Amino acid sequence: MWRDLAPVGRHRDSGGYRRYAWTGADADCRAWFRAQAESRGLACESDRNGNQWAWLGVRSAEEIALGNAVVTGSHLDSVPDGGAFDGPLGVVSAFAALDELRARGARFTAPLGIVNFTDEEGARFGLACVGSRLSVGGLTPEHARELRDGDGVTLPQAMERAGQDPDAIGPDPERLARIGAFVELHIEQGRALAGPRALDAAGPGGCPVGVASAIWPHGRWRFDFHGEANHAGTTRLEDRRDPMLTYAGTVLAARAEAERAGALATFGKVAAEPNGVNAIPSLVRGWLDSRAPDEETLATVVAGIERAAARRGEADGVRVGVSRESFTSVVEFAHGLRDRIARQLGGAPLLPTGAGHDAGILSASVPTAMLYVRNPTGVSHSPAESADEDDCVAGVRALADVLEGLACR
Amino acid sequence: MWRDLAPVGRHRDSGGYRRYAWTGADADCRAWFRAQAESRGLACESDRNGNQWAWLGVRSAEEIALGNAVVTGSHLDSVPDGGAFDGPLGVVSAFAALDELRARGARFTAPLGIVNFTDEEGARFGLACVGSRLSVGGLTPEHARELRDGDGVTLPQAMERAGQDPDAIGPDPERLARIGAFVELHIEQGRALAGPRALDAAGPGGCPVGVASAIWPHGRWRFDFHGEANHAGTTRLEDRRDPMLTYAGTVLAARAEAERAGALATFGKVAAEPNGVNAIPSLVRGWLDSRAPDEETLATVVAGIERAAARRGEADGVRVGVSRESFTSVVEFAHGLRDRIARQLGGAPLLPTGAGHDAGILSASVPTAMLYVRNPTGVSHSPAESADEDDCVAGVRALADVLEGLACR
Repeated sequence: MWRDLAPVGRHRDSGGYRRYAWTGADADCRAWFRAQAESRGLACESDRNGNQWAWLGVRSAEEIALGNAVVTGSHLDSVPDGGAFDGPLGVVSAFAALDELRARGARFTAPLGIVNFTDEEGARFGLACVGSRLSVGGLTPEHARELRDGDGVTLPQAMERAGQDPDAIGPDPERLARIGAFVELHIEQGRALAGPRALDAAGPGGCPVGVASAIWPHGRWRFDFHGEANHAGTTRLEDRRDPMLTYAGTVLAARAEAERAGALATFGKVAAEPNGVNAIPSLVRGWLDSRAPDEETLATVVAGIERAAARRGEADGVRVGVSRESFTSVVEFAHGLRDRIARQLGGAPLLPTGAGHDAGILSASVPTAMLYVRNPTGVSHSPAESADEDDCVAGVRALADVLEGLACR
Repeated sequence: MWRDLAPVGRHRDSGGYRRYAWTGADADCRAWFRAQAESRGLACESDRNGNQWAWLGVRSAEEIALGNAVVTGSHLDSVPDGGAFDGPLGVVSAFAALDELRARGARFTAPLGIVNFTDEEGARFGLACVGSRLSVGGLTPEHARELRDGDGVTLPQAMERAGQDPDAIGPDPERLARIGAFVELHIEQGRALAGPRALDAAGPGGCPVGVASAIWPHGRWRFDFHGEANHAGTTRLEDRRDPMLTYAGTVLAARAEAERAGALATFGKVAAEPNGVNAIPSLVRGWLDSRAPDEETLATVVAGIERAAARRGEADGVRVGVSRESFTSVVEFAHGLRDRIARQLGGAPLLPTGAGHDAGILSASVPTAMLYVRNPTGVSHSPAESADEDDCVAGVRALADVLEGLACR
């Protein structure tokens, strides 16, 4: 399975993946998903929001109405120059766990679904988890229709070009009502938040698989620094209104605020206009990603950064505008399901994370759990992201155990 | 003339000009130049480097060999979202001054040339004054052939697509040897460097036209900040190697160094990789433009910025690479020509500038002078760049006076 998927959307120079929603690389990933589903005799469908589902054992409307389906999966899209595991590991492991259960001769008593959520990373349209957010109703179709990529292409235009009907997008309560439990397997990211219990700290004899306890609240804010374009070679320093200075001051302030609060704050994306070597910019845009253990801390950090930006902007003659582009509340995964899974896996450690996931979005509507597979370096969202093969196999086995416990009672 | 040229390469949203070398907008500008030349009965030619020349009174090889041609002109390309005057004012005024001299019944005793230098701003390939540098031999064809734009298109590819032979580029001593004097008229830029004598400070009853004394030495340096891509939501602050922090610290250090030395330093262009909201960048590139009254001061400022970047990079775990992309020595315009022109214009003020010009490049090979037309706000390289119509007319008259003095003796 890995072999077929590995070259899709891989960039020749960086070695990283560029699988953005509704692009050619995305279409190839979706075709791969369909082929995997069909080769296992699963019924494959794409829902109104473009999420792909593959079903085993759904034979009648009555069965669906029972609401006891067990679903697993993740996403196949990537950040710019992302790694091979973030997302795909969960989808590949879902198919592999089904193979494992069939090899064990498991007898399913509930329908089993495998899902590929669309546009989890938000790399193209700037908003994460678009597919799952639309389905649970956390993102309105009106808002989604206004999303644009860097070339000005709207989400509806991109969907239409990919053969998906953009008029159909919206909440999908009936499909979600089928689901009794959703389990997402994911590569562990970072070593930031788990403290001494992090999987990578457990050593080779330690624990290759952990269970998610919670997802930190997080959000994205766009900072617009409006200055005045002018000639870099002729404008006196005291006559300048240079927004690059305000941006730079804000980047450093964000780090300081995050350090003070035990939170995370990152400016990873920047755009300057006109972006010429010999022109003072008229506008610099910076995007802040911030996360914290609780919502109050997060609000304090972001307010501190906004204050620092405004202060610096006043000194630079630069107007600062801040708009929140997304926000996700803290997610506490269903305690009953979470603790039961941890016990079933022989006391797997419970780990919090700062990374958002479709599982976090779904947890508002469906009992949801997550498994993490050990990441020896902690590096993610990079071509250097990796996992040991043994740990991946352990992940598949653990997922199979969990699915067996849920769907083969 | 203005009316025909005004819409070419103007961007609908910004109102600024995007006339980059060897693009469609550039081709339109070149066609406009040819039409203006032909409508006045001038012989129009494009030289081996793509600079356009329109000649009056060159009838035989002997006349050319006299080496007494008087040439005026400037460039038609622009920075990203540049103004209407930087460059085109000098070309339009050249044609208008010829019209004025003909109306006066002037009798030319030397050939008169009007020139449009190619790729003065360097907006596309990152190096300024490519056309004039190639002609004087200050830029080798080998180096020029390696220039690439942001999409990876090389200068030869761009020239070929525009119908210009890239194999022909190189020094053009024979053409330069025709020229006895070159005069470039240009809109005044900034109010930085001229102190109390700046044209805009002279008030409405003051002086609409000034004469260039010198061009500050200046250069461009590319700073590469190499960090480690990672997930913005899961990587502990202490585990990060975030190059955006080093970039931000360097931007602020550049301003401080320039202030200390009475120089200019600007980071106007930045690029991050992968430039994703939720990814710590693997690489941030920033371009420094720096200028100073003398070369020693400039070297001190740039060395100070490099030291600050290296220090900050060490603290951030970020490797910093610096490469000089261009450098132009201080230019003192020919004192005899300069002082004669100032006297002829009734004691016009002498002004230094931080802006590079084709006139600065040519001054290495040809006696060269510059006229500045008053810019009431000092704003340049911006759609807000402007000049009063009366001042532009005064500029044309002054240029006609100067050309008459040089070519109608």
